[in-house]
Amino acid sequence: MYYPEPIAKLIDAFSRLPGIGPKTAGRLAFQVLRMKEDDVVDFAKSLVNVKRNLHYCSVCCNITDIDPCRICQDKSRDGSVICVIQEPKDLVAMERTKEFNGYYHVLHGAISPMEGIGPDEIYIAELLKRLGDDKVQELILATNPNIEGEATAMYLSRLVKPFGLKVTRIAHGLPVGGDLEYADEVTLTKALEGRRELS
Amino acid sequence: MYYPEPIAKLIDAFSRLPGIGPKTAGRLAFQVLRMKEDDVVDFAKSLVNVKRNLHYCSVCCNITDIDPCRICQDKSRDGSVICVIQEPKDLVAMERTKEFNGYYHVLHGAISPMEGIGPDEIYIAELLKRLGDDKVQELILATNPNIEGEATAMYLSRLVKPFGLKVTRIAHGLPVGGDLEYADEVTLTKALEGRRELS
Repeated sequence: MYYPEPIAKLIDAFSRLPGIGPKTAGRLAFQVLRMKEDDVVDFAKSLVNVKRNLHYCSVCCNITDIDPCRICQDKSRDGSVICVIQEPKDLVAMERTKEFNGYYHVLHGAISPMEGIGPDEIYIAELLKRLGDDKVQELILATNPNIEGEATAMYLSRLVKPFGLKVTRIAHGLPVGGDLEYADEVTLTKALEGRRELS
Repeated sequence: MYYPEPIAKLIDAFSRLPGIGPKTAGRLAFQVLRMKEDDVVDFAKSLVNVKRNLHYCSVCCNITDIDPCRICQDKSRDGSVICVIQEPKDLVAMERTKEFNGYYHVLHGAISPMEGIGPDEIYIAELLKRLGDDKVQELILATNPNIEGEATAMYLSRLVKPFGLKVTRIAHGLPVGGDLEYADEVTLTKALEGRRELS
């Protein structure tokens, strides 16, 4: 290695992050060298803070710095609906629509036999506990529209049957702004199946 | 913002790095959340170390944690040649060839009137100081083969004339493994100009 040790270490740390190869890691490390010391110290602090001050919400399992999280504490939300999602990032995507006003449940993954992830590896038990509450009437399954997400949705819909809830799955179809010409057959089939009458 | 504050701060810090947009920053921040606490603390420490423990070598201006740097301290190298490069990364590229055994001088940039970088903004004065030494006989100008690099090489070659040194410029031509068909005219012209007789 031709780099002095401190920078070699930083390059190594950066290159362990996903999607960052050795060249990019080098570029980032040199950028850090050019940053103001205060900014670098802040950066370092945020890294450690994320790890030390964040944990899973005891209700919805979303990441949070307070417990229960801000959404679970929000009494103005509709307690009759729980939207089940795979990742905290999906929650952010849902919130951005400003169309959903219920509560969430974050599974932190999806069932994937290929990767050895079974129902016990994701936060399903925590979800079941919440369904005992009489207020909950609908469960929206918003896992990803891929094999793992579908399998998880299917598994959950069967698992919660005894609770007698309304269980819905988000719609499949053509993305808005998309192009029929480039849509794959499966998506197009789903879009046809899910067609709705225009009033 | 829908993210808890610690993660929002980290996303912000990541997205200030070059080539990292908000989506990638989010992905990296969530990866940090998944890392072991020790690894995150190490990462944070390397960040601060790079800023606190690295400085420029008092001889060659390369970044180093000791002074003079390891290369300048290495007495087995050839003191008659100094290779002038723009960035510390260029030094690593040169060292990788294992073909150069002299010393280096890092300019930390190139003359660029467009960006307001004149000869005083890069480490030229430090280079001139070193040329007073009788041992130095050749100066290899290995700045980048672009406008700024060429301008810097031209400027330096005139500036050091009074020292009576041999001043050379690294060769321009076709990259090894390249394709004549795709070479631009300027490179091809340079490759023709620089042709050598086969023995």
